[in-house]
Amino acid sequence: MTHALALAERGLFTTQPNPRVGCVIAHGDAVVGEGWHRRAGGPHAEVFALREAGERGHGATAYVTLEPCGLHGRTPPCADALIAAGVQRVVIAAEDTSQAEGAGLARLRAAGITVETGLMREPARELNAGFFHRIERGRPFVRVKLAMSLDGRTALANGASQWITGEAARADGQRWRARSSAILSGSGTILADNPRLTVRLPTDTEIAPPLRVVLDRRLRTPAGSHILDAAAPSLLLHGADADVPAHLAGVERTVVGERGRGLDLGEVLQRLAARGCNEVHVEAGPTLGGALLEAGLVDELLVYIAPVLLGDDARPLLHLPALADMDARWKLQLLDQRMLGSDLRLRLRPAGA
Amino acid sequence: MTHALALAERGLFTTQPNPRVGCVIAHGDAVVGEGWHRRAGGPHAEVFALREAGERGHGATAYVTLEPCGLHGRTPPCADALIAAGVQRVVIAAEDTSQAEGAGLARLRAAGITVETGLMREPARELNAGFFHRIERGRPFVRVKLAMSLDGRTALANGASQWITGEAARADGQRWRARSSAILSGSGTILADNPRLTVRLPTDTEIAPPLRVVLDRRLRTPAGSHILDAAAPSLLLHGADADVPAHLAGVERTVVGERGRGLDLGEVLQRLAARGCNEVHVEAGPTLGGALLEAGLVDELLVYIAPVLLGDDARPLLHLPALADMDARWKLQLLDQRMLGSDLRLRLRPAGA
Repeated sequence: MTHALALAERGLFTTQPNPRVGCVIAHGDAVVGEGWHRRAGGPHAEVFALREAGERGHGATAYVTLEPCGLHGRTPPCADALIAAGVQRVVIAAEDTSQAEGAGLARLRAAGITVETGLMREPARELNAGFFHRIERGRPFVRVKLAMSLDGRTALANGASQWITGEAARADGQRWRARSSAILSGSGTILADNPRLTVRLPTDTEIAPPLRVVLDRRLRTPAGSHILDAAAPSLLLHGADADVPAHLAGVERTVVGERGRGLDLGEVLQRLAARGCNEVHVEAGPTLGGALLEAGLVDELLVYIAPVLLGDDARPLLHLPALADMDARWKLQLLDQRMLGSDLRLRLRPAGA
Repeated sequence: MTHALALAERGLFTTQPNPRVGCVIAHGDAVVGEGWHRRAGGPHAEVFALREAGERGHGATAYVTLEPCGLHGRTPPCADALIAAGVQRVVIAAEDTSQAEGAGLARLRAAGITVETGLMREPARELNAGFFHRIERGRPFVRVKLAMSLDGRTALANGASQWITGEAARADGQRWRARSSAILSGSGTILADNPRLTVRLPTDTEIAPPLRVVLDRRLRTPAGSHILDAAAPSLLLHGADADVPAHLAGVERTVVGERGRGLDLGEVLQRLAARGCNEVHVEAGPTLGGALLEAGLVDELLVYIAPVLLGDDARPLLHLPALADMDARWKLQLLDQRMLGSDLRLRLRPAGA
């Protein structure tokens, strides 16, 4: 199953909106087939593995990181393919909660195949945290990326921020962008920094370009913004009252309800889930980051800390409401930490998330 | 020498203002004597080790982490003790730059002893960074301790800060206090938090209580402040114009020149060096911390980061002058990092320090 998970991970940048899935077919001690899902619309992991196994699939055990599909989708059900190949036993890491309850499991069992589930379930679910999040909670997994100085500042008072972190940290950030279904930002960031919000990775890396999403309540995105170029698809989310300027007439737009002083962030995420977004990568200013956190919509913080100080005049990490009491502090849980060049990367989860 | 350094480290909390020194006497493959310096006025490491070696010191090799003293101080010169014991060879990690150049080395060599220096010089100097700093630069080694939230905040807007970090981090902080000659703070912190600035360690831990030093330009320390209790010695540094209130009449005080809006920090440190302070541990607010950094007087930052957010209304880490350009950012070098409970501890050095 470890090997099947490693195979699944090869689809990290390409399977969206589908989950990443790997499959290993073993006969006795020998691996006779391997496969992984590459991209939506293409064959599933099981199909690749069974093709490689051929005749040797008969009487074999299939290790699959996700419950095989039991119903016709864009491709015929993998459960049928496993049955047809004469596989004797199927070991599954995680149940596929997007299927009518246990459709795949039931189909396999009905054909007399021994089915076991739950082997390495946790890492299998972790690999597809966004997919499961979307299916089970109706909104994407939200990862907020922050790059800050040791004293928690993201830019000078004049807005200058290039670059707080070093090359290794920035290259790592590109990989987190690449695995996301969407990169979310706010119009303030577009106006101030005019970011591209595309993925820059070595040219031989295959990716499904994430959707660039801008929360632009009043449709202020200026003509000529990089976000409007053809490098990746873009989506502007705006309020019902916004006038559509001519330069945005041809850009994909969706109206979202308003709440407080901005768009309704819960609705924003529901809409992205409806579009099949699994992981949403947020690169925005302190206002949007803080508002997402305050709304309980952040699942992970990806924080790069550079060994520099910018001083108390510089811009804060997150705008959050003032606290009257230390008990009210926002508690996080550190998931992991690593060095990237001279910068430190922390991954954290809001406590209770 | 590794063993001699480990012995030296046993004096971490007690030798001030003296350096930490360890000595191992070896005869062939056998260790025949060990010693370490415990406290000022007591015997030096070599004396303990030679006592243990007795007759077997004759023809032996002595490993000492610091050049033995060659002149009479509070105790007779250790060089003479080594000569008298008939030691054949002395291996020294670090030269003692507090002695007239090579006084110890010369005395040993004149007696026909083979003397080698420089084995593990770096860790030996590191162990006594404060001592060497004071001797060679005329000021103590300054370590600024900071406890902050992930977003770089040290207290809520209302001043509440107990506790940002957890027990393990706070216990670790006590060990850094314990190894210092002085704990430095500002009158603002005394007024706001009324800290004890004493060392709380398990009761069987022997320490030489660090001097509590308060920069109190106008002698505002209120009656009844913990800093005025008998738990440890205290020193108030103030400006020439300050009136001495009755409750401070019996407290040790020293006048220091003023510079800008506060006391002259260079002079403060010179005065502490003159009092024999090796390592100065700073636990103060953002103003004093920032001023020390700006004056180029910080040798190390000891930063505890708790996995919490306090928001942009909370108090900043360090007051530093506003920057106009990212090139002007304060660069640091990360020396090490470790987890303490759920907090992260970073040790950093200002780049170029």
